[in-house]
Amino acid sequence: MEPVLFYGIPHGCSFGSIVALEWLGQPYRLSRVDMLAKEAGYAHINPTMQTPALMLEDGSVLTESLAILHHIAARDLSRGIGFAQGTRAFDELNAMLSYLHTSVHGAFGMVWNSFKQPEGSPEAAMLRMLGRDSTAQVLANLEAHLADRAWLVGVQATIADAYFAAIVRWAEDLQLFDLPREYPAVDRLLRKLEADPAMVFAHAIEDETPAQSAGGFRGHVTLDTLLPRLAA
Amino acid sequence: MEPVLFYGIPHGCSFGSIVALEWLGQPYRLSRVDMLAKEAGYAHINPTMQTPALMLEDGSVLTESLAILHHIAARDLSRGIGFAQGTRAFDELNAMLSYLHTSVHGAFGMVWNSFKQPEGSPEAAMLRMLGRDSTAQVLANLEAHLADRAWLVGVQATIADAYFAAIVRWAEDLQLFDLPREYPAVDRLLRKLEADPAMVFAHAIEDETPAQSAGGFRGHVTLDTLLPRLAA
Repeated sequence: MEPVLFYGIPHGCSFGSIVALEWLGQPYRLSRVDMLAKEAGYAHINPTMQTPALMLEDGSVLTESLAILHHIAARDLSRGIGFAQGTRAFDELNAMLSYLHTSVHGAFGMVWNSFKQPEGSPEAAMLRMLGRDSTAQVLANLEAHLADRAWLVGVQATIADAYFAAIVRWAEDLQLFDLPREYPAVDRLLRKLEADPAMVFAHAIEDETPAQSAGGFRGHVTLDTLLPRLAA
Repeated sequence: MEPVLFYGIPHGCSFGSIVALEWLGQPYRLSRVDMLAKEAGYAHINPTMQTPALMLEDGSVLTESLAILHHIAARDLSRGIGFAQGTRAFDELNAMLSYLHTSVHGAFGMVWNSFKQPEGSPEAAMLRMLGRDSTAQVLANLEAHLADRAWLVGVQATIADAYFAAIVRWAEDLQLFDLPREYPAVDRLLRKLEADPAMVFAHAIEDETPAQSAGGFRGHVTLDTLLPRLAA
């Protein structure tokens, strides 16, 4: 079977891997994971219960967004969504991917964590406050980085931009900032990406509205169908 | 000049990059950054003020541990501390590096953050408690991963093990756990790495005791000497 991406709803960072798969243009399937339902069977795919996960042709499973994005890019470097190991562009892409996965995801993560605390508790309020401060800091760093750049790395959209779109949208989900006013360059990149057919497709997939693939999407597969295919 | 690694004290995660440079065996220099002093000039090297940063031969600067570790590994893949893009081993290395940089670093980071709160405050206590819970979870995942493995990825020490050693030592710094008793496989890998000459060297560098390089260490350079070399 084609590679199958397990993506998480609502609004998982796995969104970026759907976009990257569309940009790659090779056949793939999707499997939907409700992150709030904590479906027990998914632990066989990824013991940490996180999405995304990518089941490869041989039934082995690759976890972690950063590893999956690199894997997708390396399947066809001529698409320009990733770069060859050993080049300056590869280094710059890694630096940006790492910053997004650690500092940016971590800042938003603190705010998301506040919802795991009792509603109205001092713990919830504090995590939201600390998370908001951290998020403001990382968005300011991204704003400065984007001051003289059309894309995060290089001269076209890469897997870094796909992942950026997946997590920076949380600023609006969490009603933390008025992006267009406070971080105009960040907002500009997000809007430009939102207009990309791959992004439109990924949103439709998440929202279960009619989705038009410009890439190699071959349909959904259920977890139950996939578990017997797991490599030992 | 040879590449120069800016490493942070006390006990920065940049420790892993020193170890990787030793394993690479090519000439390099070090520049010491006191993370608590927040020296203003360092912002020219890395605006986020984080360590490590790697100044390359042409005066350009690469930031983010994960990007620096990949860069070091790619300088000589025959050393076996990293793998070629497009291989299964490269994917597995990325998955582990990503897990260490996001989930593991993030869990400890919450505890470190508690020290930025007023001493004895409810905020400090809460961050320490939440961070301890998260740290217990990630260490349990690493313990399970290491149950039947001698190294984190593949059959010898890689950049993932170097980074692991740099951040898992924080469990002892923060007096969070009794590693040998609670996480014996994690402790076993840490002890095995501690005996490696590159690790012994990196500790001596941090502690400013006599350091014996088994690699290409060519001495320290000050920030002031390096600032004029910065690429525009």
